[in-house]
Amino acid sequence: MPDSLFQHWRVRVDAALLRALPAPDTSPQRLHAAMHHAVLLGGKRMRPLLVYASGLLAGADETALDAPAAAVELVHAYSLVHDDLPAMDDDALRRGQPTVHVAFDEATAILAGDALQSLAFDVLADTGVADDVRVALLRTLAQASGAAGMCGGQALDIDATALRQAPAPQRGAEDETADRRTITVPQLERLHSLKTGALIRASVRMGALCGGAGADLLQRLDRYADALGLAFQVRDDILDVEGSSQILGKTAGKDAAQDKATFPALLGLDASRARLAELAAVMHDALAGLGPRADALAALGRLAIERDR
Amino acid sequence: MPDSLFQHWRVRVDAALLRALPAPDTSPQRLHAAMHHAVLLGGKRMRPLLVYASGLLAGADETALDAPAAAVELVHAYSLVHDDLPAMDDDALRRGQPTVHVAFDEATAILAGDALQSLAFDVLADTGVADDVRVALLRTLAQASGAAGMCGGQALDIDATALRQAPAPQRGAEDETADRRTITVPQLERLHSLKTGALIRASVRMGALCGGAGADLLQRLDRYADALGLAFQVRDDILDVEGSSQILGKTAGKDAAQDKATFPALLGLDASRARLAELAAVMHDALAGLGPRADALAALGRLAIERDR
Repeated sequence: MPDSLFQHWRVRVDAALLRALPAPDTSPQRLHAAMHHAVLLGGKRMRPLLVYASGLLAGADETALDAPAAAVELVHAYSLVHDDLPAMDDDALRRGQPTVHVAFDEATAILAGDALQSLAFDVLADTGVADDVRVALLRTLAQASGAAGMCGGQALDIDATALRQAPAPQRGAEDETADRRTITVPQLERLHSLKTGALIRASVRMGALCGGAGADLLQRLDRYADALGLAFQVRDDILDVEGSSQILGKTAGKDAAQDKATFPALLGLDASRARLAELAAVMHDALAGLGPRADALAALGRLAIERDR
Repeated sequence: MPDSLFQHWRVRVDAALLRALPAPDTSPQRLHAAMHHAVLLGGKRMRPLLVYASGLLAGADETALDAPAAAVELVHAYSLVHDDLPAMDDDALRRGQPTVHVAFDEATAILAGDALQSLAFDVLADTGVADDVRVALLRTLAQASGAAGMCGGQALDIDATALRQAPAPQRGAEDETADRRTITVPQLERLHSLKTGALIRASVRMGALCGGAGADLLQRLDRYADALGLAFQVRDDILDVEGSSQILGKTAGKDAAQDKATFPALLGLDASRARLAELAAVMHDALAGLGPRADALAALGRLAIERDR
């Protein structure tokens, strides 16, 4: 069941994205074409699926979920465009396609990312729910995207990478007990709780808000989403070690090459896999007793943990 | 009167901005410090003043105007950070200070801009007005910021500059009647109507929305704001020819050096000044009969036209 349901939701959100994006044959064409390239060429649509699945659980009208599902994917897509820029991760390949600054140019990539972020809030303002819920959705997405969320996590990631690339401490220096060029596991978890976790938490929360979920359900769903976001990232780090570029659709082995702090680097592969199992248990516990309407969320949790790309 | 009123509003919006920005001594510090640098070091606060002045005209509560005033300045500030990047205008000096990517680094500048845009919508979601008005404010700012507004205008500007830097047409080529490397005055006006006009129109409109302005007043204010936005840009172009870097607080003569399409370049200085006078008349006409409550907007119109930096 979930697979065909996910495909149904993917079709829905892609239609909503296509409606929201400016036509690529209208001026300014290059900007519009870059926005299409960033959003419509592939992607698993994990965040939109979470919006729909959480909305289903909370009893939201499916039509009302199209706007938040599209909005969260627009924010995700813009963040990838900016993360791939030469001044950031400098990646030429994304979702098996040339990244936006490679297919177009850097200035267009910066602007397309900026415009996609604006579009997310524009789309969200049209959600077919009561005005107070719309305001709550807009606030949720804005906070998850900014310095206290995704952007803050990316900043922590840059800081952590810079730290690892600093010169090794000299023997005989004041503190030679530990190599301070690396961050700790709790710091890495905080980094990801902002960088990818915040938007995943917002996806789950927005779906629930559209269904009028109460404080108790919202709290359970936050717990589920926090575990899912972290699991997603641990799995990502493992795949970067184990996977091939062909399956991933992006450059494999890049984390190690860039000397990035990752879970396998800090914990080793076995302990990283054990952490994944713990997170699966947290998700299972958070959804316990919610009945078959929580099946889609549970399936998405398993997908995050078991995926091979 | 207006001068002290403007100063009062500048103090109000600066306080609102300071409340909204994340503390620079909290993690991630570098990102937070860059956001502060982008927003708090100078700036005329033209757009916030328009929010307050338009709100005053429409009878809005001054306290309710702090959020839209801060939000529009956050969008303006983020756009400057991104416009100054090496891949865009590549400017090292802004408001008499090093630009964000010079004071920090490119990655931080990209992220700080992104986070400032998110923050704008977060702040706006807290405006002390009814929920339906909040949604209208959020939609207004999102549309003015995106591909159909500011980002679209910046894209047109990049296209126009690329056009001018293309090789000159050869004699005997198919169309030698005109040098197609330049854009027309109507194209230049459309470019600025999006690049700077959209956000200025949104500022005026948000103030009016907070006061519950009806369709008739909103239409007049749109006319005023369109003329103001264009006047602001024509004056900017003239100042780039006439001004000095010291007074401007940014690099003068840069438009000509970058071979940018400007009003003086297309029309000459005299005709550019005549266009300014026409725009002043349009503003005067749009505000006619609105009484002393429109004085602040009228004064801001004169300021845009007469300013020397």
